[in-house]
Amino acid sequence: MDSLSIVILAAGKGKRMYSSMPKVLHPIGGEPMLARVIRTARGLNPSRLVVVYGHGGDQVRERIGDGDIVWAEQAEQLGTGHALKMALPNLPVDGKTLVLYGDVPLTKTGTLQRLIDAAGRGMAVLTDVLDDASGYGRMVRGADGKLKAIVEHKDCTPEQLAIREINTGMMALPNARLAGWLNALKNGNAQGEYYLTDVLELAVKDGVAVESASVDASWEAAGVNNKLQLVELERILQANQARALLEAGVTLADPARIDIRGEVTHGMDVSIDVGCVFEGAVALGDQVEIGAYCVLKNVKIAAGTKIAPYSHLEDAVVGEACKIGPYARLRPGAELAARVHIGNFVEVKKSKVGEGSKVNHLTYIGDAEIGRKVNVGAGSVTCNYDGVNKFKTVIGDDVFVGSGTLMVAPVTLEDGATIAAGSVVNKTAPAGQLTVARARQTSVPGWKRPQKKS
Amino acid sequence: MDSLSIVILAAGKGKRMYSSMPKVLHPIGGEPMLARVIRTARGLNPSRLVVVYGHGGDQVRERIGDGDIVWAEQAEQLGTGHALKMALPNLPVDGKTLVLYGDVPLTKTGTLQRLIDAAGRGMAVLTDVLDDASGYGRMVRGADGKLKAIVEHKDCTPEQLAIREINTGMMALPNARLAGWLNALKNGNAQGEYYLTDVLELAVKDGVAVESASVDASWEAAGVNNKLQLVELERILQANQARALLEAGVTLADPARIDIRGEVTHGMDVSIDVGCVFEGAVALGDQVEIGAYCVLKNVKIAAGTKIAPYSHLEDAVVGEACKIGPYARLRPGAELAARVHIGNFVEVKKSKVGEGSKVNHLTYIGDAEIGRKVNVGAGSVTCNYDGVNKFKTVIGDDVFVGSGTLMVAPVTLEDGATIAAGSVVNKTAPAGQLTVARARQTSVPGWKRPQKKS
Amino acid sequence: MDSLSIVILAAGKGKRMYSSMPKVLHPIGGEPMLARVIRTARGLNPSRLVVVYGHGGDQVRERIGDGDIVWAEQAEQLGTGHALKMALPNLPVDGKTLVLYGDVPLTKTGTLQRLIDAAGRGMAVLTDVLDDASGYGRMVRGADGKLKAIVEHKDCTPEQLAIREINTGMMALPNARLAGWLNALKNGNAQGEYYLTDVLELAVKDGVAVESASVDASWEAAGVNNKLQLVELERILQANQARALLEAGVTLADPARIDIRGEVTHGMDVSIDVGCVFEGAVALGDQVEIGAYCVLKNVKIAAGTKIAPYSHLEDAVVGEACKIGPYARLRPGAELAARVHIGNFVEVKKSKVGEGSKVNHLTYIGDAEIGRKVNVGAGSVTCNYDGVNKFKTVIGDDVFVGSGTLMVAPVTLEDGATIAAGSVVNKTAPAGQLTVARARQTSVPGWKRPQKKS
Repeated sequence: MDSLSIVILAAGKGKRMYSSMPKVLHPIGGEPMLARVIRTARGLNPSRLVVVYGHGGDQVRERIGDGDIVWAEQAEQLGTGHALKMALPNLPVDGKTLVLYGDVPLTKTGTLQRLIDAAGRGMAVLTDVLDDASGYGRMVRGADGKLKAIVEHKDCTPEQLAIREINTGMMALPNARLAGWLNALKNGNAQGEYYLTDVLELAVKDGVAVESASVDASWEAAGVNNKLQLVELERILQANQARALLEAGVTLADPARIDIRGEVTHGMDVSIDVGCVFEGAVALGDQVEIGAYCVLKNVKIAAGTKIAPYSHLEDAVVGEACKIGPYARLRPGAELAARVHIGNFVEVKKSKVGEGSKVNHLTYIGDAEIGRKVNVGAGSVTCNYDGVNKFKTVIGDDVFVGSGTLMVAPVTLEDGATIAAGSVVNKTAPAGQLTVARARQTSVPGWKRPQKKS
Repeated sequence: MDSLSIVILAAGKGKRMYSSMPKVLHPIGGEPMLARVIRTARGLNPSRLVVVYGHGGDQVRERIGDGDIVWAEQAEQLGTGHALKMALPNLPVDGKTLVLYGDVPLTKTGTLQRLIDAAGRGMAVLTDVLDDASGYGRMVRGADGKLKAIVEHKDCTPEQLAIREINTGMMALPNARLAGWLNALKNGNAQGEYYLTDVLELAVKDGVAVESASVDASWEAAGVNNKLQLVELERILQANQARALLEAGVTLADPARIDIRGEVTHGMDVSIDVGCVFEGAVALGDQVEIGAYCVLKNVKIAAGTKIAPYSHLEDAVVGEACKIGPYARLRPGAELAARVHIGNFVEVKKSKVGEGSKVNHLTYIGDAEIGRKVNVGAGSVTCNYDGVNKFKTVIGDDVFVGSGTLMVAPVTLEDGATIAAGSVVNKTAPAGQLTVARARQTSVPGWKRPQKKS
Repeated sequence: MDSLSIVILAAGKGKRMYSSMPKVLHPIGGEPMLARVIRTARGLNPSRLVVVYGHGGDQVRERIGDGDIVWAEQAEQLGTGHALKMALPNLPVDGKTLVLYGDVPLTKTGTLQRLIDAAGRGMAVLTDVLDDASGYGRMVRGADGKLKAIVEHKDCTPEQLAIREINTGMMALPNARLAGWLNALKNGNAQGEYYLTDVLELAVKDGVAVESASVDASWEAAGVNNKLQLVELERILQANQARALLEAGVTLADPARIDIRGEVTHGMDVSIDVGCVFEGAVALGDQVEIGAYCVLKNVKIAAGTKIAPYSHLEDAVVGEACKIGPYARLRPGAELAARVHIGNFVEVKKSKVGEGSKVNHLTYIGDAEIGRKVNVGAGSVTCNYDGVNKFKTVIGDDVFVGSGTLMVAPVTLEDGATIAAGSVVNKTAPAGQLTVARARQTSVPGWKRPQKKS
């Protein structure tokens, strides 16, 4: 097989984004558009991957990371033909080159494979067929059906204006011809730019076969020049992802109200209520139920667990058959064993909670290790921070922590300890004993309530 | 009037649901599809209601409950004609039988009544007219306009392919003919199944009048074979319900962002902000305002009450002119009198709160009875659980509970008691007195703060 | 330039709104429809602004406020011509009058300016062109293209039924003719009403030039008669506003899920996640990020601040580079300096928080002044209320407030004070010292746990 190079043109500033960030870094589905195009490109196993950068190049390189990417700078923006020329020194002299765009984020790998296959040892252009082709470059074919030229809308004859097949800009080219064609491009147009589309006529002139492949849907070829176009593609991406979940058997309450910025993997009989947002890698086991308006980022949830509405989980691991929320927050490092209950207004950070333990109300658990069958009462706090250092709270198995208990770390509550409500515990609570730290209750007869001040 | 029997075919497995749950149990509008079809059927007052079950029959029967339903098993899935035959032993010899489907959940009762009326003493088929009838069985009529046959798409002549009237599968049949027709069905088709649609030609052959009635909208006849189709019908149902609320004068911020899984009843001048989810029976009095993203399940809210965003109410009763939320959680058994305020990060469970009382911040109230004009300060907790038993907290009228008070149940705070902030109260707080249980404040001069550990 | 008067007809009851509130007070984009029409009208700098009121006049006048508005009562609802006649005594004898409707809320000022310009010294009607004009009054033009009449749908000839240009009801009229024309109107129709549209034929008869201007979009002329129409216009308004934000470079996660009831101003690189609701005046600085499902009302947020999901901010000011939420609530009078962190389940009311201070978990801060670099531990409360009066808590710079601290106001924590976890502080905590108010910890060997009661 011919070796495949891929060049991604990513030098544009994106003035109409009104942003200090280079256009190709604007996120779609939670990642920079360019990162998504690179991911698509890698799906084709190219032997070389070149990104042509320009505006905000440092930002782009820093954000995307180098890895196996070859970076080619386009210092001046002199058109797509010029941009591809900047990549020439990094391309092998044979094989073929696929040209993609950093601001066209939703092309499917399969479509590009068809384009590459269509090129054979010649050239191929990715086209689309539109009901209204106004503004697009038309694919002009001869009587034999062979591509002859790409004609810009403004240069079209009345017959050409009726053509509905348009150029997407993506193409596959034979490296052996590339230098010759790119050097032959002219910039005698209004913008004074070198257009890559002009290579088609050079190929025809050189007797190189020019084939085409088509996108399955127009959004595969849609580019982003402003925030409106960005959000249109974002919603298409989200709709596609929701549809894929439905097709795989996930129950969604509303495919128009789910956002996946990363990847959701899942077992059987998973259901997701309205308005959930998923970020990063989210794994949902069999029978997992996610309530309305949950936000989950990089979490793994085992089978049978139910997450009630408005729960916010990040970098956390949740065991089987847990009950979480509503209004539960699991912060990075929260690791829950099976059958754990985390209730409303409870925050868990960098802590392990053992099997069957319950923290049901208004509690902060941070830097703690909690054993099995522990009950932590409402309004309890692990006082893990002394203003400069963080300390650990260790709670054994079968401990009962009364409501309003403050555990001043470092501190240990041994197996089977019971803490009386309202205690401040700052030394070991011995196993099996009742530990108390609170004042005696007294009442003041004849006491007068405060009066309203004028 | 002829006696009416209704047979609901509900034996399909629903392989493309990719679920361990039988297809007809998948919920729409918060209830199993089959339950909704049964509810629609009951609206027709049938003298007999037969459900033909098959796959997952135990699950189906357990979930739906028996009541007046006659269950008929279809052990093998040999087609709709065979399925109906399984119900035959349970049908009277005269009257008529309406055939419905457990996975066609949104048919309207009125439409089915028209179908029954159309049948008269003969037979009638429920039809739809589609712009694109591809794939559907066509209703073939004679020159006299009378129905002659239902022809499957693949068997259609070019003329028949142009027919846009299609078969929905629902039909009303004369019981007197039923056994004969069902026994006469053949399974000489690719699937080797007995098709109920074939009875139409048998009726024509027998000289029985075959009439038709039409659905008002195509979704009335839409069936569910996968999660995509399920969610499409879910959104149609939700849009219909939202429209009904609007037509009744309820103000909605966005009809595309409200989910009703049950029934919402309401007074005048009710307004509902974006993203609310209603489950079970929800009753909203005059002038009730529901803020954005509230989740309400089985609640009754009296006139003039305002619920602020992100409030989560379940099995609760709320009096007039209350202010609830934001971030308020009322759990089962919460009963609020008039003019009660429940504020942010407050949880109320199985408790009564008297008129004009306020629990405004960060508090857990469980198993309590609270009188009138009580103020519960921030960070208070009813310590209702000792690890094995739950106990009650009784708070009289006009009690002032200082912030951070822990009420260790069983305990009583008598009328007019004042509890100093930060007290742990575990015995009666006498009426009219100040009750204190806290330590004296001291300071440590020359104390050095902890240093950062390396 | 001719002096401009504007008359807004706002007397209708709106029976189909099923509401106790007059129709024109129903809100769109967070303000009464009438208020929006008045705002649009003011954009035209009229020398006189007359509102014709009727049903619920007191409510209308009270809600809208007087200012420069002249109120004219229409005691009986005898048609639009009659309504305008009620305004006559308040109109100057020359100049022109623009007629608007209190229940047509989305007309653009620019469109109305075109209408006024079209009128010149004659008359002009605002028209729309519809694909399906059924039910609307048709604009009938002569062979010369000049307007001749407005013919109601039911009175149209077959030729007139084909006319797609329709009357919106808005028009500009010469004051000098107004009294004559209004007095000449007849009510010989089925409703027995005086129709303002009939003045067109009177104008033609009088040889007054009748011109037209057209709306840019049909929603500019859409009126509200029921809650369905109200919500349709609400969603159009919201879509327009979302589009305007996108065009200005704001990143939105979903333009179908943002609600703006007031005005959002913003810097560069602002991003807003799904489901946010903005009310009143909201100002977002550069690089501000608003997480999913936030509700913001009258807030000013400085550059670089990130608001995490489910945060609820009202009448608050937030400094630069703050981190707020998730589940943070800023209530009226919260003023945060730069780099402040307000974390989950924290409520701040009428308090200032100094630069770099952190209140991260489960805390109520009310009526407080907090200095710089303060850390307030989880579960702390400013006890600002004694049941009748509110008092202030003053916390100096560099104070460390241990978790579960109750600050009984009025109280001062001086610079550099440290409060031990679980303390109830009700007198000054001296600068630089450790202040403690808690009981000693003891344990009870041989203690038996409570048993399950039967």
